[in-house]
Amino acid sequence: MADKLIIFDTTLRDGEQSPGASMTRDEKLRIARQLERLRVDVIEAGFAASSNGDFEAVRLISQVIKDSTVCSLSRANDRDIALAAEALSSANSARIHTFIATSALHMEKKLRMTPAQVLEQAKQSVRFARNLVGDIEFSPEDGYRSDPDFLCRVLEAVIAEGASTINVPDTVGYAVPELYGNFIKNLRERIPNSDKAIWSVHCHNDLGMAVANSLAGVKIGGARQVECTVNGLGERAGNCSLEEVVMAVKTRKDYFGLELGIDTKHILAASRMVSQTTGFVVQPNKAVVGANAFAHASGIHQDGVLKARDTYEIMRAEDVGWTANKIVLGKLSGRNAFRQRLQDLGVQLDSESELNAAFARFKELADRKSEIFDEDVLALVADESVSLEQERFGFVSLSQHSETGERPRATVVFTSGTQELKGESDGNGPVDASLKAIESLVKSGAEMILYSVNAISGSTESQGEVTVRLQNNGRVVNGVGADPDIVVASVKAYLNALNRLQNKAIKVAAQG
Amino acid sequence: MADKLIIFDTTLRDGEQSPGASMTRDEKLRIARQLERLRVDVIEAGFAASSNGDFEAVRLISQVIKDSTVCSLSRANDRDIALAAEALSSANSARIHTFIATSALHMEKKLRMTPAQVLEQAKQSVRFARNLVGDIEFSPEDGYRSDPDFLCRVLEAVIAEGASTINVPDTVGYAVPELYGNFIKNLRERIPNSDKAIWSVHCHNDLGMAVANSLAGVKIGGARQVECTVNGLGERAGNCSLEEVVMAVKTRKDYFGLELGIDTKHILAASRMVSQTTGFVVQPNKAVVGANAFAHASGIHQDGVLKARDTYEIMRAEDVGWTANKIVLGKLSGRNAFRQRLQDLGVQLDSESELNAAFARFKELADRKSEIFDEDVLALVADESVSLEQERFGFVSLSQHSETGERPRATVVFTSGTQELKGESDGNGPVDASLKAIESLVKSGAEMILYSVNAISGSTESQGEVTVRLQNNGRVVNGVGADPDIVVASVKAYLNALNRLQNKAIKVAAQG
Repeated sequence: MADKLIIFDTTLRDGEQSPGASMTRDEKLRIARQLERLRVDVIEAGFAASSNGDFEAVRLISQVIKDSTVCSLSRANDRDIALAAEALSSANSARIHTFIATSALHMEKKLRMTPAQVLEQAKQSVRFARNLVGDIEFSPEDGYRSDPDFLCRVLEAVIAEGASTINVPDTVGYAVPELYGNFIKNLRERIPNSDKAIWSVHCHNDLGMAVANSLAGVKIGGARQVECTVNGLGERAGNCSLEEVVMAVKTRKDYFGLELGIDTKHILAASRMVSQTTGFVVQPNKAVVGANAFAHASGIHQDGVLKARDTYEIMRAEDVGWTANKIVLGKLSGRNAFRQRLQDLGVQLDSESELNAAFARFKELADRKSEIFDEDVLALVADESVSLEQERFGFVSLSQHSETGERPRATVVFTSGTQELKGESDGNGPVDASLKAIESLVKSGAEMILYSVNAISGSTESQGEVTVRLQNNGRVVNGVGADPDIVVASVKAYLNALNRLQNKAIKVAAQG
Repeated sequence: MADKLIIFDTTLRDGEQSPGASMTRDEKLRIARQLERLRVDVIEAGFAASSNGDFEAVRLISQVIKDSTVCSLSRANDRDIALAAEALSSANSARIHTFIATSALHMEKKLRMTPAQVLEQAKQSVRFARNLVGDIEFSPEDGYRSDPDFLCRVLEAVIAEGASTINVPDTVGYAVPELYGNFIKNLRERIPNSDKAIWSVHCHNDLGMAVANSLAGVKIGGARQVECTVNGLGERAGNCSLEEVVMAVKTRKDYFGLELGIDTKHILAASRMVSQTTGFVVQPNKAVVGANAFAHASGIHQDGVLKARDTYEIMRAEDVGWTANKIVLGKLSGRNAFRQRLQDLGVQLDSESELNAAFARFKELADRKSEIFDEDVLALVADESVSLEQERFGFVSLSQHSETGERPRATVVFTSGTQELKGESDGNGPVDASLKAIESLVKSGAEMILYSVNAISGSTESQGEVTVRLQNNGRVVNGVGADPDIVVASVKAYLNALNRLQNKAIKVAAQG
């Protein structure tokens, strides 16, 4: 086994599967580019057969990404595998990741198949996939809760059929490090052809131990691939967090003795991009990427004892992309400075017209706000990308007023296709009144299940970024909007969410 | 060693030490009561010698809490220890937790003491403390990075002096489970009188492994006390998370084989109380207490395959306090229903007049909002507790207007002591204008380093809860405010933060 640890990022697949975290094709491409800058070894770009949107995202990412292997998930059937191969056809380096459940519970309740049928289907699928793509990964879903004897038979068979990576998911986040590490060790010892594959770990964080479990799979079990997501995004309590597992392996190289290809200084930008795109906030006390993770980078001066840095810090904030001075641009910054800053932040716009549109928005923002931070630039570009999509609803203008003792009122003018509409309403607050003004005309019937605001650089002078999560007929979408006026940002986010609700694609849920 | 695992909560001490997380005495008392309802074994209520505020908080909590042991941190010197003992004098069950650094780095850079001096001071301090209080815990700060030979000498000596709990902190979050577990195992094997003490673990989450490290200390090392905080609150990436470590031990009882005294159904209320008090948000993909931790409890219906619950969930949401129907009170709810609901939520108000004031605010809220959720009730009570403190600044009324193409303007009327002031300003948005209207008269000069909003029950009809973090002359305070109108909530939060900036207490920073 090589001494390199392969980082397999599944933010765009398992992360995106988190309720409310769905992303558009363009958002996925932007994140994929950031993952490439991070030098992630494998990017799981989606689950091509699950929806047209996922197929298109995998296809687009395969065309653009050159340095990372691009992977599509696929159930263990010929149709899914053929679609995955088609979506991946332009990739420099392509991988198909096929899976089937092997635990008694999943085989019985979800698949309604016998173990013999599951074994046969796993073999056939890997054989079929191997004829389309050279690099095949196989996952026994709910592997950690599967019968080890049966699991050995399945895994030996798929390695014999040509699976070159074997991933053992702890689908429900039930593992503890020692047991999970030994589980993988035992599989590798018992399976005669285990040395023909690279072993991989895929852990969920339901008991708060996804990182430690993954690393026990590496240290005790001999795995050499970790599946993870930026910010630990993922269903329920999420997946193993990329930034934590990477920094643990680097910081404790004395113990793990493994090489990583990751360029860690792009970690923070990746974290912010994923958080802003999905609307999933990162808590301040989150390791590596939380606002407080490095005390001296948060702008907070501690009282009392002056502490030497190495007394309390084991990593350098700069190494993961925190910098002290975050004021980057102002009113007088030109187009070249703006373009350069985008490049430094890992944002690549697809055309000159996209750049021009983003720059126009930047100048408009700079008129209202004296100091432009990196976060502002990222929000502005995220906002731009949203507006480039096919949109039915667009913001035109807002007027709102609230006064103690009276009920807040708002008037919103917005476009619906080619029409311009004007809605008026009162509400519990100016935001509520504004959204009711829109809903009074649109009548989407959607239920709001999340509303959150972040001031992008920590003060009310900065832009507010609003995330609105709507649910309608079993579909959940996020809308985001940014503006120095929090009410305007809310209206933009709501219209953005309504646009996304228009997109009727239905996706198939996949393994954890 | 007993088969019970002792849960030592340090939310009010190590958690509160997190920059921006400082709490008032009354907030600490409220959280201590919730920890008692949780049946936490030991509550570290503060660091009595660090400030008058901390002394008062420890004293008040000692008077009120009856079922949990109440503990104060203390440096290893007679003055600190005497103050801790005095603050704890009313406690049913009191513990002094004294510490001194034992790593070469800390002894040299922070203490400027020789190892021999540190050993002597540790012994003397435990001897002194033991004569004041029967239950003594000793921590070698940065213990995990200390020389094991020296550590053995120190720990053997303090056990001989009567320390009954020995805590081995991984102060900088550098440990990995296997090494940390074996570190404690070796100490226990080498120290002749190690069986005279209960061993304890205290882990930080800088590499994302605090829970797994703590549990390795328990499983491999034989520790029987875990130090943790609600939501993993704490400096940098925080401490071991109480909810995760507790649910891991319960869910994997097959592996750990340990009993816990914790009443887990109060976990969610504790999490929300700590988050609302400190303004530290809990990310949706946080294990156990994040909004998405239990898919079926978040109100989100998954697309695609219908999943049997035990196929994907290893814990029951109800067991940690999530309930499906969260609408609890409405306009017609009476005083008894309100009081009962407070009791169910673990909130105890100190007097009938506090209850009356809270109920009046509840009726006022119910007039504007048809469905009152648990979160609303908790916010309302938190807000109430804030207003009971000595306040210089108070909200009177607000008028604000924003309109596309014009600069937003606001007029705020507020009290300053006995005066009523009226400030006016424009700003980048209505919130910015309102806060500038206040600042134009108060001239605090404080810098805003965080502004965040949470809609308390997920829609814009609900109350918005705003947290404002101000920094001035090296002090950092949080202000919180709740109102259905987000601009009003922001004004309340800002005034609350200004009130806290008035309180000039300076605290000593303690070990991690």
